[in-house]
Amino acid sequence: MRQSQLFTKTRREAPKDEVAKNAQLLIRAGYIHKEMAGVYSYLPLGMRVLRKIETIIREEMNSIGGQEVLLTALQNPDIWEESGRWSDKEVDVWFKTALANGSPLGLGWTHEEELTAIAREYVFSYRDLPFYPYQIQTKFRNEVRAKSGIMRGREFLMKDLYSFSADTESHAAFYEQCAEAYLRVFNRVGIGAQTYRTFASGGAFSKYSDEFQTVSEAGEDVIYINRDRGVAINEEVYSQEVLADLGLVEGELEKTKSIEVGNIFNLGTRFSEALGLRFRGEDGTEQPVVMGSYGIGPTRLMGTIVEVLADERGIVWPEAVAPFKIHLVEISGGDESVKQYANTLYTDLTKQGVEVLYDDREVRAGEKFADSDLLGLPYRVLISKKTIEEGGVEVTYRQKGETVFVSRDQIFSL
Amino acid sequence: MRQSQLFTKTRREAPKDEVAKNAQLLIRAGYIHKEMAGVYSYLPLGMRVLRKIETIIREEMNSIGGQEVLLTALQNPDIWEESGRWSDKEVDVWFKTALANGSPLGLGWTHEEELTAIAREYVFSYRDLPFYPYQIQTKFRNEVRAKSGIMRGREFLMKDLYSFSADTESHAAFYEQCAEAYLRVFNRVGIGAQTYRTFASGGAFSKYSDEFQTVSEAGEDVIYINRDRGVAINEEVYSQEVLADLGLVEGELEKTKSIEVGNIFNLGTRFSEALGLRFRGEDGTEQPVVMGSYGIGPTRLMGTIVEVLADERGIVWPEAVAPFKIHLVEISGGDESVKQYANTLYTDLTKQGVEVLYDDREVRAGEKFADSDLLGLPYRVLISKKTIEEGGVEVTYRQKGETVFVSRDQIFSL
Repeated sequence: MRQSQLFTKTRREAPKDEVAKNAQLLIRAGYIHKEMAGVYSYLPLGMRVLRKIETIIREEMNSIGGQEVLLTALQNPDIWEESGRWSDKEVDVWFKTALANGSPLGLGWTHEEELTAIAREYVFSYRDLPFYPYQIQTKFRNEVRAKSGIMRGREFLMKDLYSFSADTESHAAFYEQCAEAYLRVFNRVGIGAQTYRTFASGGAFSKYSDEFQTVSEAGEDVIYINRDRGVAINEEVYSQEVLADLGLVEGELEKTKSIEVGNIFNLGTRFSEALGLRFRGEDGTEQPVVMGSYGIGPTRLMGTIVEVLADERGIVWPEAVAPFKIHLVEISGGDESVKQYANTLYTDLTKQGVEVLYDDREVRAGEKFADSDLLGLPYRVLISKKTIEEGGVEVTYRQKGETVFVSRDQIFSL
Repeated sequence: MRQSQLFTKTRREAPKDEVAKNAQLLIRAGYIHKEMAGVYSYLPLGMRVLRKIETIIREEMNSIGGQEVLLTALQNPDIWEESGRWSDKEVDVWFKTALANGSPLGLGWTHEEELTAIAREYVFSYRDLPFYPYQIQTKFRNEVRAKSGIMRGREFLMKDLYSFSADTESHAAFYEQCAEAYLRVFNRVGIGAQTYRTFASGGAFSKYSDEFQTVSEAGEDVIYINRDRGVAINEEVYSQEVLADLGLVEGELEKTKSIEVGNIFNLGTRFSEALGLRFRGEDGTEQPVVMGSYGIGPTRLMGTIVEVLADERGIVWPEAVAPFKIHLVEISGGDESVKQYANTLYTDLTKQGVEVLYDDREVRAGEKFADSDLLGLPYRVLISKKTIEEGGVEVTYRQKGETVFVSRDQIFSL
């Protein structure tokens, strides 16, 4: 894409009320727009990042048998009354609204109830189990404080998968499969090294739940990590008893702040009992379905990547989620032959399917470099009179800051 | 995909309160689930259709220079006060809600205000124009009546594009480009022959707006079509004066009911004046931006395709939007060699990238055929002891109902 065509521009300052680094950088670089605290729109560059994150999550969910659905934001109180989660006393993040006739409705902040109700129409026998529907959909949570940029939204994207199994054994097997898929997601988006599977508080159906926590000073959680084993304990359950339980030793743990980028819960029969989701087992008896829920927030993940990898000059995108792979920057100083060289390279790369943002704007070289650092694409390819004379192009790796001089052909196999 | 793995099943009956043919068929076939009137969830098969429709729309919007964004559902009253559209007296489809601190919010039913406000941050000079942001996003409209299935939702998907141009000439040129792109969309999704560009009521900035109306008894509109010229007039503006205006003759028009599948509006400077979106022109003077809006509802389009093409046996999907291209049906009667033949064909087709729904369920042949008709995939490929003995496979074209016997190889080039 030609940068002159992009309708967004970089800005020197983020809005004064924006305190989170991720949102400050993303707003300054034109990736997102702040509507109000915790509510952000995604502009063209931001959409491209979000779509790539979504695609990675979708691929991993499909690989473990996930079936994609799209549930509704508008929620019928009836099914939430069945589970006991309609009341604002039980759940303090509801946004509520009403139909024209006055009937109350909620805005979905999670979807256990809705999917359990749908499953009632399709589950009769053990032969109908297991299955794993998921969606990538907008959630609404009426948070009192929303100061973490796109990491804690009042409106945000969530990938939520729900598992429906016949018994605790097959449930446990899928639970582990999904935990592994989650680690693959975090590796692929570029924060695998900083992310720990973390023991956190469970519920009625298991002692622990699993969180995936990314080490960062911007996080709202505190965890104790064991780097060697790649696991951690959330502060909320940290105790001598838990250490003993997990075979971890106090001295080998490191206390740190972290961002929760994913979680999985054993829901047991909490919702299937409440909503009457039962099936006839192989032995002929009626049984409640065993459920689990598995969440990753694509928007929070995007914010986390920015928090963890950005440097003092701007955003640093891993290649897998960058809006474009190459930032082609021409410094022509008005020289038509330089522009023409850059134009041809842009066309050739695009034809080969390489994703290129081409800075063809008529602005100072210094501004182009500063914008390029802020935008954070993995490879900056510089074309100038000098590089053409020297018979190649200059490539700067955004992450390492390293600059190398290579032949034009080598750009195609970066 | 193996049908035995799909968590949805066909049903004999739709819910009693469902009166729209599109929703009745889609619910019976397991494509969607009804949450309440005008609010539907999309199940795995329905999601696949929706994604294909979205992809076609996205490709056509990108081809005319559209830049994809994702705006928010939660709306800040401030910008709507500026345009005078916050009050329930002005707009009767608002869903309203509130932050925990009591501040009122709306749920977006359209996004002129939000995008105009965003554009204020990026438009300064004529050099910053034109641009064409669009999104495929969930809209909320508090309709008093919602009896048309997924064709009129209280919550529904909308593709809304907004154009920002420096003057009426460049605006008009893009308006025509987008009208042509819309016709390409309707052709590609398979309802081009039934869809007419229709003159409808305009506004302060143009005598007419353009609607795209698909002829159907299920429609809520009435139009007068001229089949030869491929245009129509909406009843709401039909008069002798309009006929003269458009050079149409009363006797050559046919009155019919129709579904509005798209619309485009010349917004003029209505929103740019109200929200102060101005730029410095080439001549140095300050001017308001000239805007247009361009809508297609992917969910309504999906409902329209069902209404227009379904027959007495069920849904009929055009290949471009079918959830799978081939419905592979094995009628083995327990014969392992038939199952094995079908399994191998399924694997081979899938490896070649052909999208196949494979009915490997242990149910009666009659049930498989009825389900296959209801689901409506373009090609049914039947494998039985008889077809194997005869050295080929049987293909039934869902739309025409025609059955032919072809070699196994020919299936790969259907």
